[in-house]
Amino acid sequence: MKYGVIGTGAIGGYYGAKLARAGKDVHFLLHSDYEFVKENGLYVDSVDGSFHLTDVHAYGDVREMPPCDVVLVCLKSVRNQLLKELLPPLLKQPSPKGGNGTLVVLIQNGIGLEADVQQMFPDVQLAAGLAFICSAKTEPGRVNHQCYGYINIGNYSCRQQALIDSVVADFREAGVDANEVEYHEARWKKAVWNMPFNGMTVALDTQTDLLLKHPATLQLIREQMLEVIEAAQACGVKYIDESFADKMIDNTLHMTPYSPSMKLDFDYHRPMEIDYLYTRPIEEARKAGFRMAKLEMLEAELRFLQEEKNRL
Amino acid sequence: MKYGVIGTGAIGGYYGAKLARAGKDVHFLLHSDYEFVKENGLYVDSVDGSFHLTDVHAYGDVREMPPCDVVLVCLKSVRNQLLKELLPPLLKQPSPKGGNGTLVVLIQNGIGLEADVQQMFPDVQLAAGLAFICSAKTEPGRVNHQCYGYINIGNYSCRQQALIDSVVADFREAGVDANEVEYHEARWKKAVWNMPFNGMTVALDTQTDLLLKHPATLQLIREQMLEVIEAAQACGVKYIDESFADKMIDNTLHMTPYSPSMKLDFDYHRPMEIDYLYTRPIEEARKAGFRMAKLEMLEAELRFLQEEKNRL
Repeated sequence: MKYGVIGTGAIGGYYGAKLARAGKDVHFLLHSDYEFVKENGLYVDSVDGSFHLTDVHAYGDVREMPPCDVVLVCLKSVRNQLLKELLPPLLKQPSPKGGNGTLVVLIQNGIGLEADVQQMFPDVQLAAGLAFICSAKTEPGRVNHQCYGYINIGNYSCRQQALIDSVVADFREAGVDANEVEYHEARWKKAVWNMPFNGMTVALDTQTDLLLKHPATLQLIREQMLEVIEAAQACGVKYIDESFADKMIDNTLHMTPYSPSMKLDFDYHRPMEIDYLYTRPIEEARKAGFRMAKLEMLEAELRFLQEEKNRL
Repeated sequence: MKYGVIGTGAIGGYYGAKLARAGKDVHFLLHSDYEFVKENGLYVDSVDGSFHLTDVHAYGDVREMPPCDVVLVCLKSVRNQLLKELLPPLLKQPSPKGGNGTLVVLIQNGIGLEADVQQMFPDVQLAAGLAFICSAKTEPGRVNHQCYGYINIGNYSCRQQALIDSVVADFREAGVDANEVEYHEARWKKAVWNMPFNGMTVALDTQTDLLLKHPATLQLIREQMLEVIEAAQACGVKYIDESFADKMIDNTLHMTPYSPSMKLDFDYHRPMEIDYLYTRPIEEARKAGFRMAKLEMLEAELRFLQEEKNRL
């Protein structure tokens, strides 16, 4: 199986490098780090053991890449419009002799991503990749992996179960804990953590640990989590128990104080993923008759901060 | 009539000086500015005409002040516990010959102030003073009055209508537009402006004009105003029409870009009036069966900022 990685950063760099180190045939699309990685390879500083991948199939232009069986999309979702140009060269058509079409796995945060990419490419096979990982790209070609690392795969429109199974098996061979999960439930469950912590660390210019240290914000985070759980139910996802919120809070209490990706984006004056992390789930819940009042407020604060304070 | 002013700052300094300039007998309690005002008097830089009050009855110790017919309490509400010591020397007891007891007017922002002071002094006559004014103490003994200036008086527990009438008449003689209003409605109507703008300028480190410039925060401010209106109704206040929110927004659009008092408190590392501006109205609404979801979130953010970011 040939793997393509679009967006070789904190996520794509980590998972791609793990697969390549395990001998998988991985092809990386790079942008600003292309020259560095072409010459020096990829460095992964990891709590699970650091390594240096010297022999990297690095590309600066997607048109030079081979068609792939699996494409891992690890772009920031604010750049998903680029997929119109970036995906086609990597796609294999299913052949009448039984060859599979490409499976595109969106390892991105938010709600509604697969629906929008499916609109761009009606026939492509899609899955969600839910990455549970604390990692950051600290320098060109260097990923720092602080904790966790497992990935869940949710089938959105893949017609070959065998393809999903192979991806899960390849991740496991590469030392990444991977599991198949139900798509809708998985996306919303991830949002239970993402929606409170990404935005609140930006809104209050802080980290996960301080939000949980103060009783007022601890309670607020929990109430925002419950809003996501209620929204999920309104949108037809199978029942998520309230105790899931407490589990997420408990997990976070045991994490190293953490700046989620949106906080890093804001601090480095990059656009924040407000659309798929907030606007879209808020809209879908509202259409289904549920108002996420506190997360609506957070969305408005983030819009303000993005426009008013995030200019270089 | 003898007037006492407790807290000679942006509010007490302005209204007290206006009354004194009109020939009323006003006695000012000062703290840090005592020496300056004793020697130099009070300066009011005002859009309605600046003036310098040279002959000021200034006191550094409440025990040296005379009993007063009317006491204007213009302290920050975070210091209301001090009233236990500050008020008694100023209070007149009603005499059997028909003399009135003192009327204490709380010119402070929030909900629940009179109820708490009444608990401290069960017999004292109380009224709310709702000041519609943009003013700030810019230097010792100097108040800058930027716009508006009218005051509404809401009777909480005053047994003599004539006393309320006299206060209103005195303010008017002093060139301050004053009116008597219904207590509960007036306190809640004031909160319609105060709750959104005070907290949001702190939470987003901004001013009134920028909040209204961005569509997301304009809508948020309006929704927070509607929460206050709904809370007021739940608490038994007579119907406030939604158009009142739009009027408040429109008024604010025509104001000079403004930092509300809570923003100044935060910027100068002073404690914020979170209790009476947020916690109390939120609690009262909740007891009456209404959740102010977005203002609850704002309260939590302010608590966090107060504890985490407001230390000198």
